[in-house]
Amino acid sequence: MKRIVNDPDRLVEDGIEGYLAAYPQFYEKTENPRTLKRPQAPVKGKVGVVTGGGSGHEPAFLGYVGEGLLDAVAIGEVFSSPTAGAFLDAIKAAESGAGVVCLYGNYAGDNMNVKMAIKKAKAANIAVKTVMANDDVASAPKTEREKRRGVAGEILMWKVGGAAAAMGYDLDGVAQISQKAIDMCRSIGVGLSACTIPAVGKPNFTIADGKMEIGIGHHGEPGVDITDWKPAHETAKIMLEHVVEDKPFERGEEVVVLVSGLGSTPVIELYVYYAEIAKLLKEKGIIVHKCYVGNYFTSLDMMGVTLTIMGLDEELKKMVDYPVNSLALVQK
Amino acid sequence: MKRIVNDPDRLVEDGIEGYLAAYPQFYEKTENPRTLKRPQAPVKGKVGVVTGGGSGHEPAFLGYVGEGLLDAVAIGEVFSSPTAGAFLDAIKAAESGAGVVCLYGNYAGDNMNVKMAIKKAKAANIAVKTVMANDDVASAPKTEREKRRGVAGEILMWKVGGAAAAMGYDLDGVAQISQKAIDMCRSIGVGLSACTIPAVGKPNFTIADGKMEIGIGHHGEPGVDITDWKPAHETAKIMLEHVVEDKPFERGEEVVVLVSGLGSTPVIELYVYYAEIAKLLKEKGIIVHKCYVGNYFTSLDMMGVTLTIMGLDEELKKMVDYPVNSLALVQK
Repeated sequence: MKRIVNDPDRLVEDGIEGYLAAYPQFYEKTENPRTLKRPQAPVKGKVGVVTGGGSGHEPAFLGYVGEGLLDAVAIGEVFSSPTAGAFLDAIKAAESGAGVVCLYGNYAGDNMNVKMAIKKAKAANIAVKTVMANDDVASAPKTEREKRRGVAGEILMWKVGGAAAAMGYDLDGVAQISQKAIDMCRSIGVGLSACTIPAVGKPNFTIADGKMEIGIGHHGEPGVDITDWKPAHETAKIMLEHVVEDKPFERGEEVVVLVSGLGSTPVIELYVYYAEIAKLLKEKGIIVHKCYVGNYFTSLDMMGVTLTIMGLDEELKKMVDYPVNSLALVQK
Repeated sequence: MKRIVNDPDRLVEDGIEGYLAAYPQFYEKTENPRTLKRPQAPVKGKVGVVTGGGSGHEPAFLGYVGEGLLDAVAIGEVFSSPTAGAFLDAIKAAESGAGVVCLYGNYAGDNMNVKMAIKKAKAANIAVKTVMANDDVASAPKTEREKRRGVAGEILMWKVGGAAAAMGYDLDGVAQISQKAIDMCRSIGVGLSACTIPAVGKPNFTIADGKMEIGIGHHGEPGVDITDWKPAHETAKIMLEHVVEDKPFERGEEVVVLVSGLGSTPVIELYVYYAEIAKLLKEKGIIVHKCYVGNYFTSLDMMGVTLTIMGLDEELKKMVDYPVNSLALVQK
């Protein structure tokens, strides 16, 4: 076992304990041990913004709790959906009377549990709207967008929805702009080596030596192509083409670019990759309004990188530039 | 090759290009391609604060360029010292007439190159003071502190020195408080698996299956003990004892704690580890004024964790709490 854990089956509990011990300015317990909220939540008069997802993607999801971002998060087991109860308690923790948006990713378990949570929230007279992220272009054809998974585009959706809520948008308004944010997003990942869930002890999928998998999912879901290893500039080009053509992003358009490592990729390599993306976007006449390069949405110790691009209009740009303070995202 | 690179021998150049493309608000070229400065440097009347070191430790060293932190950084090859010329150009880029402190880590190459750079800087009438970090307790006995390596304690030294410079301390003052910061710091690392320099293509050291190496250095330098793998709570206890006994840190003392992953360690595991450290410190009556948990000083894709503790007095506390804005460190 090459990992820093106690009982691997208690990884999530132990991790949550660490978050609470390390950053009480960002996290507070709720009655549900699998739901954390920020100390300020619920914020009077503000639409609550919540999400939830499996563990192992740190800093997602907890790292995005903060001012101008998320109010509460439901926490699942490693690579598993949080329970309906955890989602419900996140919604309750964020509700101040203005309603709550739940901005989550399109996975079967999350869908099911969010739906159950909403039913119960409505029974408790909480107005809830949901927006489901489906930014991963590799996970289904464009004609079946509803089948696509949510990946790192979720972060930009939270950024936009969180800003709108902080700016005083009402429930419909926050839901609408969050939907617009994710509609404007496209992502793709590439995997170079697999990850290991500590409680399993060995990778649950493999990427052969000398190969890379274009379009791999955050849990090792199959990609669109297994190719020979390629240098960063070729990898960047292939990934960018998938993303740009799908939307499509056009010459003159302003965008946000988010490059995330999948866990083990050395940070300097993320910059090597971004340098290629920046060059290619320049050639295409696509203008980078803002970029993020780092480990923003990982898959334990997977080696690889994800690319997310979000198109901007004036309203979205305001949301992207709105101040924020969280562990994983700060205004720089 | 399981890595995101072009020509592995051009990793550093390509990475620097990415930094410049991604964050022009933080980085500006100098005449030396291996020296970057922040756009505001040199800041009139302010003591310049610079460092330098090998690549592969990202976000160190570049990530700590920013307001209230470093003004310029000399960049070496992967795991190698920057040249004397790069250090000299960092000093020149930071000099506004108030002098420059060079706050660096104790490695043979860095020592030699910093010394040569200072000789030339003095010949060019720049007043320079140096402080050399030697916070790694595992790298030499306490009686030979001058032989100890500098590790993640450097970050806290930069934080303190950078704040003092921003607050208007003069050259002697900045050097003195930076020295105090590092004198108050103790660190230790543990390695679970080795890292691979892309240009080499295979690890230059090994950690056997089922083993862990207490006290390993950032480049695989041998530690003080190779033991069977231990759960996080035992690992944390062993590491903390080394650090606490060496200084020693006493009951009632206030400290900063910095936990850094070495590259591949999933972030949730860093929190599992921190939860144990927090418990142990509480038992010892040592008070955590502030903590940092994340990937702050890495070694490419090594699996493992480092622990740094810095004791505080009122002056250091002011410096630690001083606002800062950089890629890797922000006020949260």
